Amino acid sequence: MQAYLDNSATTRVSEDVANAMLDMMVNTYGNPSSLHRMGFEAQQKMEQARLQVAKALKCQKEEIVFTSGGTEGNNLCVLGGALAKRRRGNRVVCTAYEHSSVEESLQQLEKEGFEVIRVRPQANGEIDPQEFLQNINDNTVLASFMFVNNETGAVLPMQSLAGQIKKQYPNVTIHVDAVQALGKLEIDLAKAPVDLLTISAHKIHGPKGVGAVFLKKGARVLPRQFGGLQEKKIRPGTEAAPSIVGFGLACQNASEHLQENYKSVQALNAYLKERLGQIPGICLNSPENALPYVLNISCMGVRSEIMLHFLEEREVYVSSGSACAKGEKSHVLKAMGLEDKRIDSAIRISFSHDTTQAQVDALIDALKAGMQTIRR
Amino acid sequence: MQAYLDNSATTRVSEDVANAMLDMMVNTYGNPSSLHRMGFEAQQKMEQARLQVAKALKCQKEEIVFTSGGTEGNNLCVLGGALAKRRRGNRVVCTAYEHSSVEESLQQLEKEGFEVIRVRPQANGEIDPQEFLQNINDNTVLASFMFVNNETGAVLPMQSLAGQIKKQYPNVTIHVDAVQALGKLEIDLAKAPVDLLTISAHKIHGPKGVGAVFLKKGARVLPRQFGGLQEKKIRPGTEAAPSIVGFGLACQNASEHLQENYKSVQALNAYLKERLGQIPGICLNSPENALPYVLNISCMGVRSEIMLHFLEEREVYVSSGSACAKGEKSHVLKAMGLEDKRIDSAIRISFSHDTTQAQVDALIDALKAGMQTIRR
Repeated sequence: MQAYLDNSATTRVSEDVANAMLDMMVNTYGNPSSLHRMGFEAQQKMEQARLQVAKALKCQKEEIVFTSGGTEGNNLCVLGGALAKRRRGNRVVCTAYEHSSVEESLQQLEKEGFEVIRVRPQANGEIDPQEFLQNINDNTVLASFMFVNNETGAVLPMQSLAGQIKKQYPNVTIHVDAVQALGKLEIDLAKAPVDLLTISAHKIHGPKGVGAVFLKKGARVLPRQFGGLQEKKIRPGTEAAPSIVGFGLACQNASEHLQENYKSVQALNAYLKERLGQIPGICLNSPENALPYVLNISCMGVRSEIMLHFLEEREVYVSSGSACAKGEKSHVLKAMGLEDKRIDSAIRISFSHDTTQAQVDALIDALKAGMQTIRR
Repeated sequence: MQAYLDNSATTRVSEDVANAMLDMMVNTYGNPSSLHRMGFEAQQKMEQARLQVAKALKCQKEEIVFTSGGTEGNNLCVLGGALAKRRRGNRVVCTAYEHSSVEESLQQLEKEGFEVIRVRPQANGEIDPQEFLQNINDNTVLASFMFVNNETGAVLPMQSLAGQIKKQYPNVTIHVDAVQALGKLEIDLAKAPVDLLTISAHKIHGPKGVGAVFLKKGARVLPRQFGGLQEKKIRPGTEAAPSIVGFGLACQNASEHLQENYKSVQALNAYLKERLGQIPGICLNSPENALPYVLNISCMGVRSEIMLHFLEEREVYVSSGSACAKGEKSHVLKAMGLEDKRIDSAIRISFSHDTTQAQVDALIDALKAGMQTIRR
């Protein structure tokens, strides 16, 4: 029984997506910018995918710019969004638990003279939306927050928070990192007054190496890549048409089954939590209202990497935090103020809609065994 | 008879490459940065691909950094390469016929106070290496040139030019845009003293959306993307492992058959030129010593887009210039000093190793018919 429970790191590409990409690669292989039929056909498929992505976000097709993934998207929105407004002010407000692609962009902004305010999560792992709002002032050009945290699943109420910010500070650009939310929580950009939003394909059973940013009509970012006329020059470079087509299909699949997938994962998560409650020494780090796709726990007395390898030997795959951090100490759990021994024994379990109860049972059995045999 | 003769815009992904990617997407789908077996397996495949790419360039595996393609690579090398040395000087020497991803990066450097010297091609389309060399001085931090021009196939002698530059100016960073040369001309970085070099997968029957830069041991670039620990932080973001694996295989395929492919394309090119010589009103814009994979011609009296569509109706696909420029007037032919009516009637024919003589015949027949029926 193999149990891949590291879906927040990446997911298996679904077969219909992979086959659609294969077809693009060997049949509709023209350059979407070529002016002949072979190019036009690739372009049409790409535009169909753009529509699928836009539908998943409830925005206009023209508001979607394809990128190479979440990191590029977050860089474009945070750096490009703040720098486009640098004459209006120099404050940026964000959370203390952003993904490294946002956090490192913020550090670049600090080097350029911006003041970055990082709102810390409470002990339960949640950010207080009111505290976030209170940190915004007239000098603020950008507010950037994660819709769903990648390590704990903590959720910020995107629509209401964005609404409150815009009401008080209509000139603040709002960026949302929605990489972990896409296909799991409803994203309705017709209602949420967000200006910029980042998504990625490989977290929703699409391919690695492609993502998109939503760039609201009228919103401005300074491009970070320079070249040809593709993607309205906001993101030049030959469009990765096969990956884009795969992304479009993955968005459509995820959107169509969002509710039912959520419910099934919610049930699995509840089942897991209940069973974990019976294992001594395991404590939960995810907030109670976290997205059920992610559950962060600490196996007290067992270092993360030890448990990770113990589970791995039993074909159970989880992570000790963000894959991007490759085993570094979690800055998310640190920001929550957790004590070191809890951080050092943290494990992130992350589900997909195709996770089965048998896989969860395999995890529980392995965790139990681990706690019994290797706990200090 | 379909004749796809726009291979400098992009190529068909070969089936072994597409299948290797499919396998990665549905079987070895772990995140290469994940610390468990699923991640490790993906990482191993990726490192195997890195070795294949390195072998194609005769460099070390550790000198390869994967990117999302040629545009990102050229941006990283030109902007990142010049900015890393901004304290040493502010002159950049390049050619006047660079790809837009280099040219637009140069324009960014100009905004930052750099002086950019663009060496113009001679009337025959070739850059004089001595003229290029003479423009370099003690204030020069970066020399950047295309190995093979994308519109005409004009070749600069990479190894000897780089050698001469380094001999006189050892501190100048040398960047080569080798996107159109990879797999077609030998690239030997063990011999050519180049510091940075850009390549892309989709020009050699690999996937769109992936490329690499060679970053010579000890050479420095300022990263342009910020995030996780991937690619030694020079290019963070979840690695597009399936695309990278496809790229590696495409490199291996191209390297293994480089000589024989070159000869067969050379023969086709010679055949085409000979036959074109018999059609009144067609003149050649490519230099005599151009790479045989590209042939730029002008169909005097027929505007490019008219001829392009005439050919398209006969299932012959060529381009009017760079796909990235989407029909804009060619800056390459302009830099050569060609007269407007010749530029406006230019057509780029570009071959692959799988191009057949029957396809070339189809092109010739269609061109002949076009010249007879639509020429003013």
